[in-house]
Amino acid sequence: MPDGELSRAAAVSGFPEWLPHERLVEQRWIDTIRRGFERYGYAPIETAAVESLDALLSKGETSKEVYTLHRLQADEKDSSDAKLGLHFDLTVPFARYAAQHFNDLDFPFKRYQIQKVWRGERPQEGRFREFVQCDIDVINPEQVPLHFDAEVARVAGELIAELGVGPFTMRINNRKVLEGFYAGLGAADPLAVMRAMDKIEKIGPEQLGRLLRDELGLTAEQAQACLDLAQVRGSDASVADVVRKLGVTSDLLDEGLAELAYVLDALSDLPFVVADLSIARGLDYYTGTVYETTLDEFPAFGSICSGGRYQDLAGQFIRRSLPGVGISIGLTRLFSKMLAEGKLPLGAKTPTQVLVVVPSEETAGLAAEVGRALRSRGINTEVYHAPDKIGKQLRYASRKGIGAVWFPPFREGAEHEVKDMASGEQAVADPATWAPVSE
Amino acid sequence: MPDGELSRAAAVSGFPEWLPHERLVEQRWIDTIRRGFERYGYAPIETAAVESLDALLSKGETSKEVYTLHRLQADEKDSSDAKLGLHFDLTVPFARYAAQHFNDLDFPFKRYQIQKVWRGERPQEGRFREFVQCDIDVINPEQVPLHFDAEVARVAGELIAELGVGPFTMRINNRKVLEGFYAGLGAADPLAVMRAMDKIEKIGPEQLGRLLRDELGLTAEQAQACLDLAQVRGSDASVADVVRKLGVTSDLLDEGLAELAYVLDALSDLPFVVADLSIARGLDYYTGTVYETTLDEFPAFGSICSGGRYQDLAGQFIRRSLPGVGISIGLTRLFSKMLAEGKLPLGAKTPTQVLVVVPSEETAGLAAEVGRALRSRGINTEVYHAPDKIGKQLRYASRKGIGAVWFPPFREGAEHEVKDMASGEQAVADPATWAPVSE
Repeated sequence: MPDGELSRAAAVSGFPEWLPHERLVEQRWIDTIRRGFERYGYAPIETAAVESLDALLSKGETSKEVYTLHRLQADEKDSSDAKLGLHFDLTVPFARYAAQHFNDLDFPFKRYQIQKVWRGERPQEGRFREFVQCDIDVINPEQVPLHFDAEVARVAGELIAELGVGPFTMRINNRKVLEGFYAGLGAADPLAVMRAMDKIEKIGPEQLGRLLRDELGLTAEQAQACLDLAQVRGSDASVADVVRKLGVTSDLLDEGLAELAYVLDALSDLPFVVADLSIARGLDYYTGTVYETTLDEFPAFGSICSGGRYQDLAGQFIRRSLPGVGISIGLTRLFSKMLAEGKLPLGAKTPTQVLVVVPSEETAGLAAEVGRALRSRGINTEVYHAPDKIGKQLRYASRKGIGAVWFPPFREGAEHEVKDMASGEQAVADPATWAPVSE
Repeated sequence: MPDGELSRAAAVSGFPEWLPHERLVEQRWIDTIRRGFERYGYAPIETAAVESLDALLSKGETSKEVYTLHRLQADEKDSSDAKLGLHFDLTVPFARYAAQHFNDLDFPFKRYQIQKVWRGERPQEGRFREFVQCDIDVINPEQVPLHFDAEVARVAGELIAELGVGPFTMRINNRKVLEGFYAGLGAADPLAVMRAMDKIEKIGPEQLGRLLRDELGLTAEQAQACLDLAQVRGSDASVADVVRKLGVTSDLLDEGLAELAYVLDALSDLPFVVADLSIARGLDYYTGTVYETTLDEFPAFGSICSGGRYQDLAGQFIRRSLPGVGISIGLTRLFSKMLAEGKLPLGAKTPTQVLVVVPSEETAGLAAEVGRALRSRGINTEVYHAPDKIGKQLRYASRKGIGAVWFPPFREGAEHEVKDMASGEQAVADPATWAPVSE
């Protein structure tokens, strides 16, 4: 606790905050992600942090740890903010938004949303109660072209690569393949098998095999076929042939394999994409392609980017079929992990690129002029706040990690000079042409 | 209500949301403001939306309409998120942050914060329950150079001009002038007089004069002198002489006039700055320079940007003197007003700058290549999602307001062509050099 700090000066646990030099990097990440989304034509929307509880719980997900809102000084006659809560993801608000503004949107509607969400979970490593999600989705009434199953994966994957978080793997599967395979195998309840198979990482193949036989009534051969399917990996469309060689057939399986092959084919230039027939992602929402992304150096950390195709975005809000496909990057989880592992290029504590020193009262006007000239050229410039000893002003620049210090000519006939703080070199410069060394 | 929409598909009143073409403009505003803050070396911080109630109410401001948080499914054994609330401004969180991280910050600490805040007010025109504030502050232990009183006003004023919201006026005053004047006049309780004078716009000079005489015990001459001071306006440092001619003297008045003259002098190139000796801005917090900004076309709309100098940012959190000066732009209020008045340059519904059409299955690969080439040059590019009739693809571009459509060569020997959607002109283009017309 800093010297003299009172006990209430603490952020609340689970609600992460960064120091300026960390926030500068987080902001660069957000800029990168946003630029990437926009490069592919995703349009920004921002929904309110607050929704009616009715909307938040409309999918029956009462198990989500929703924060409800109450006014400290509630006026009993005013029920205008009764039953409000903070959104716990960006999907429910997007569904509500799409339904509400259906007639004002142009389809296929491609949107991104980079916002905080809140969950009243118990804090633990990598779990936050307030965190930023970065979502893209494409929705279209009735039917969404498969093109977008590949596009959203490409956009997210390229961005994660651009962030520089080390090697990662984006696993892709298709739930029609799973469901179609179990059905073709003769399972009485293919969805129940899928639900069971989703536990493979947690409980291991042996226990899972018993579960399939004892609880779901599969024969030993059927159970083994399910486990064999979950072993299938591949990096291109030929993975479909591997699955076919398992000898199971059904129309749904064929459809799923064709979709999976299409997506893998479209992404064949991305080295981090693999087909992984073991992943299923959640249960009731996704209906086709699914994605899951893990850091190769931290496999136990869990998925940093996932999503998939769904049949019905907003059925609880509108009597329209709104299928879509989307993917989400868990920014705060990923950023805080990289921060904790010391993998971030932390640098300056300020966006300032150059500090103009003010050696004396007489040069103050000239320093201000240099500041204006540099700023007008888009260079982030501080002019020191008062005439003072040069050494003190240099220490200020050094403490904040400012890369360059500008010396206005402080006697008749002298020239402008700039000192590079990293190399210590000092050279003559012109405010009309000088540019900072890029990081 | 859109066709088929169910009743729960509505945003909650007082929590504003925009359509994509509106959000694109809001985002441009936020980018402009952020760039402006960074150009002057203000460092970004972002505090959690959630603070302990203890911290939120530490200044005794229980009248603020604080939203408290509760978990929908509260676990009685877990009190880890008992007594939490959403921040209602960015000053209290900044004070808590500065106290908490005091030893990690470098002073003078210049920070900006662009974040949502929440107030459980009854919704009315120009009042929101969720809105974005854009704050800058400079804090420094013990003493903050007057330089920054001018700087924060310059930064905010230049930005409001850059946003293009029409003519506006930034009024500047200094509370030392007011307090020093009333004290020099012989008022028994100068702060009480200041509090009364703050009502001048509301109740008018006549009623205010009575109040000064009857309730605060001023003589008719003293009361008139107070009203005379409130009439003083000026656009440069000579305003100090006008005040001095009223014949009142005190050390505090001299100090205040010197400060006011310094700030006006430093801002003399900004045409929207005026000295206005009637403004006082709130009551207990500010101790020197104060700012208030109104739109000339909508004077009744109230202040869109205000702030001032304070003696003690974080006394409730840390046993350190942390004076500062800051200013805040009310982004959501200003943006929604301009939107309502039809003053925003609303345009495209997407950030896409060019749509690459896909005339046939055979050209799909070539279209994708063009897309990659354009994106690699930072151009926001959509490739149409499936081979289809050109007319349909043009209508898609037109509906979304995409400025250009790219035709890959669709037979041997043909060239790439781009159609400008505004002019209708079509010309040969090269993916390696083409650039969109800037807006």
